[in-house]
Amino acid sequence: MRERVMTGDRPTGKLHLGHFVGSLKRRLELQESHPMTLLVADLQAFTTHAERPEEVRMAIRDVMLDYLAVGIDPARTTIALQSLLPELAELAAIFGLLVTVGHLHRNPTIKAERASLGIDEEQLTYGFLGYPVSQAADIVGLGGVLVPVGADQIPHIEEARRIVRRFNSLYGEVLAEPRALVGHFPRLSGVYGRDKMSKSLGNAIFLADPADVLRKKVRQIYTDPTRLRVTDPGHLEGNVVFEYLDAFDPDPEGLAALKERYQAGGIGDVAVKERLVEILDALLAPIRERRTLWEQEPTAVERLLQEGSERARAIARDVLSQVRSAMGLPLRL
Amino acid sequence: MRERVMTGDRPTGKLHLGHFVGSLKRRLELQESHPMTLLVADLQAFTTHAERPEEVRMAIRDVMLDYLAVGIDPARTTIALQSLLPELAELAAIFGLLVTVGHLHRNPTIKAERASLGIDEEQLTYGFLGYPVSQAADIVGLGGVLVPVGADQIPHIEEARRIVRRFNSLYGEVLAEPRALVGHFPRLSGVYGRDKMSKSLGNAIFLADPADVLRKKVRQIYTDPTRLRVTDPGHLEGNVVFEYLDAFDPDPEGLAALKERYQAGGIGDVAVKERLVEILDALLAPIRERRTLWEQEPTAVERLLQEGSERARAIARDVLSQVRSAMGLPLRL
Repeated sequence: MRERVMTGDRPTGKLHLGHFVGSLKRRLELQESHPMTLLVADLQAFTTHAERPEEVRMAIRDVMLDYLAVGIDPARTTIALQSLLPELAELAAIFGLLVTVGHLHRNPTIKAERASLGIDEEQLTYGFLGYPVSQAADIVGLGGVLVPVGADQIPHIEEARRIVRRFNSLYGEVLAEPRALVGHFPRLSGVYGRDKMSKSLGNAIFLADPADVLRKKVRQIYTDPTRLRVTDPGHLEGNVVFEYLDAFDPDPEGLAALKERYQAGGIGDVAVKERLVEILDALLAPIRERRTLWEQEPTAVERLLQEGSERARAIARDVLSQVRSAMGLPLRL
Repeated sequence: MRERVMTGDRPTGKLHLGHFVGSLKRRLELQESHPMTLLVADLQAFTTHAERPEEVRMAIRDVMLDYLAVGIDPARTTIALQSLLPELAELAAIFGLLVTVGHLHRNPTIKAERASLGIDEEQLTYGFLGYPVSQAADIVGLGGVLVPVGADQIPHIEEARRIVRRFNSLYGEVLAEPRALVGHFPRLSGVYGRDKMSKSLGNAIFLADPADVLRKKVRQIYTDPTRLRVTDPGHLEGNVVFEYLDAFDPDPEGLAALKERYQAGGIGDVAVKERLVEILDALLAPIRERRTLWEQEPTAVERLLQEGSERARAIARDVLSQVRSAMGLPLRL
């Protein structure tokens, strides 16, 4: 049997094109060849959304709908909800004994995320600092060996590996070291350029956006500010329309020809954007359609999440009992 | 019904006279009037004993035997094992979102414990820093309202109160603020004076010490180094024999007379120590005897811990489901 892939999302809103190119597409490929677990990390979402519980709750449903809509198959891929798996909290408490505060403070991902959210020393919660510990528990506890990540998430996997090595050195060779599967397309700009696409920055095209919203957002995309007339030569660097075309256009030859015309001053932004709308709509229309169907079956969606969580929990129970037994903790009640 | 008392011990060794005067005696009194839960905090023990799991395992049994030997009545008082209560780990994970790292670093108890154990920044584990968070989860999760503590532990209770207020302000008035019941006799010196009595410092008289070991340890007690002959006036300050007599002598008038004779130079250390041996042996002999009886019933002792843990877990489940429901987390699997 192939090694289990483990990944997931913090439910803080609907998924967008950035998720699609950065992770969902890869998961759809991996689903064909590997057992996979997707964790909807609702407790993790509270590290930044403790004051907005309602948003987390809505987002659990949205992320689940987005997964099903893009083609994650719950018969093959296990979709589980973090807060339904108490074993992960127990494992995180144990792992927290094996990592120092100094090391967590130096974790580059934590540093970058703190900087982008503007979290200073006095605002940094214990839970936020422990993100890598909790993530290590999620991966290991769900039997994950391969973890598809963007380059910015590699330090978390390194942390998980360190924790596993430390555990094994203290209590015996019980746990397997997970490995990062680094994606080749980790980042998509938001529609206004500069920043990464993100719900909180208001620059995202969501998988669930209706056709008219999609069209409107594409119209707002940042292109080439130096270009005033259609006949001016256009620039591709920093031009978000072409970034998206690079990511989504299924016809590379047609795209190469379009780029040439654009740089020569032979085609206007409106026409290029029209092409992008068509490409994105061709991608999103079936996703949108499947999403609408699932939206009408809230009980079935909830049941899928329950069933997935039960399957995941069986693995987590097994991992935890190996961990407990290695540490000499008494068995369960 | 009276408010529930909640306290406990980290199982890192047998209990000693310091525990007796600092906490066990008070618990025996409280047991008469209040529902009480004693938590054997084995996961907490790993914060300092991660590399010595076997010691923790042995100490779980020892602490349990010591409780039963001093007269904790498992029919009235719930004795529970922390690692058998996964709800406490879940609650701790949630509470960790509500407290900042800066605040934990400034916790005076954590600072003092770090100093006494010589734990610098690079050795401080995430789990150790989170001690107050985990303790708050233990107290609140087990329905504890009154927490008997030594003065040095008050900051932990303050932390628990802050967390509860923060939780209630975010998610509604769900949790009760625990209160500290500060003991009047929180600290006993070790036999060599200066330091607090502590297993790790090797200066403790254990409740389980046989009579001959007790006698030998009392002989080693630090008294008055300035006194060379029986006829020299003796000093009471810093004199550990008299500290113990103050703590354990059931005859205050006899003790006052003895102190006068000692200060006047009318009685030798050997005679005073002989009196202390008699007093301590009168206290410890029945404890020792009950301990020996329970030692012969390991299965019964284990069953008591299991049953207590089950009772405690019913409370923890209830608290956690109120917490989850207030946060809008879905119900359990």
